[in-house]
Amino acid sequence: MELLKQRILRDGKCPSEGVLKVDNFINHQLDAQLLMMIGVEFARRFAYSRATKILTIEASGIAPAVMTGYCMGIPVIFAKKTRPCTMDNVLQSQVHSFTKDINYNIVVNSEYIKPNDRILCIDDFLAYGSAAESLIDIVTQSGATLVGMGFVIEKSFQEGGKKLRDKGIHVEALARIEELTNEHIKFCD
Amino acid sequence: MELLKQRILRDGKCPSEGVLKVDNFINHQLDAQLLMMIGVEFARRFAYSRATKILTIEASGIAPAVMTGYCMGIPVIFAKKTRPCTMDNVLQSQVHSFTKDINYNIVVNSEYIKPNDRILCIDDFLAYGSAAESLIDIVTQSGATLVGMGFVIEKSFQEGGKKLRDKGIHVEALARIEELTNEHIKFCD
Repeated sequence: MELLKQRILRDGKCPSEGVLKVDNFINHQLDAQLLMMIGVEFARRFAYSRATKILTIEASGIAPAVMTGYCMGIPVIFAKKTRPCTMDNVLQSQVHSFTKDINYNIVVNSEYIKPNDRILCIDDFLAYGSAAESLIDIVTQSGATLVGMGFVIEKSFQEGGKKLRDKGIHVEALARIEELTNEHIKFCD
Repeated sequence: MELLKQRILRDGKCPSEGVLKVDNFINHQLDAQLLMMIGVEFARRFAYSRATKILTIEASGIAPAVMTGYCMGIPVIFAKKTRPCTMDNVLQSQVHSFTKDINYNIVVNSEYIKPNDRILCIDDFLAYGSAAESLIDIVTQSGATLVGMGFVIEKSFQEGGKKLRDKGIHVEALARIEELTNEHIKFCD
């Protein structure tokens, strides 16, 4: 997605090798117009998926997921990082954050994903794939069908994308980054 | 907003007096089409605010805020509940959650709110107004102008709305609830 790549080149920051900060338009301040274009693009790429629901993780996944849900005309569920005391029947899975070097659980109310659902997962980043694996785990626990996974940005030099594609999952990333240093950001062809 | 009130009557749950669960379409599963209509309605109500940015709090505020930002053509900033280790200059304020009976801090990178900004705050709920007061505190710290505050749902039987309106703030709530029991939900006229 050319518009996104240009924006990453203009506003993305690489404070240390392999790290990309997009706080300016995706992760803290949100460019709502760009996010709608991201939703349009995901809807186009997954147009034949027959997805019935979108699944994402709070907080940074919500904006691209809700725009995609709007464009596809389907509801969005965001997995929570803390289990609300009022939530009884949950689907739960553990995520390892390589950035923060911590483990945390994500939970989804089992009422919202049923065996006949076709789930499209949307998230902001794909790096090592730990959050993605947890989303897959939750879909599997629910008995629903995973129809695809869409990421705004993929760091293709980390292993997550390869692992997901090797499982036969339909993975789409709107900007795939091959090299990331202070000097330059290189996208895959 | 009639569409929203009808949806609250249909899908909102009141597990105990004064508590409203809208997990089905606002707080966990998101109805993206309804959220866009909410964005359209906020944009209409704040059309003359000359807002330059929207400020909200993760995670439940993000979806209504990003839709409003899209409709108004302005960026959205979501305050974070944990301070990222890479964030240096922050605006910070403490929120008391009456639901969970805990205090937590919200933080915003000071780079994203400047003294010449005109800030519209958007959030999902207005009850006692603690989160709203913290958003006001952050706007005040930044030196920007607060032009209004929009809430998807206001519990008018709790004191937040009165406190904000008494300060002279332009407050809009799309559904104002006057009474909330297991038996019925009554909206203000």
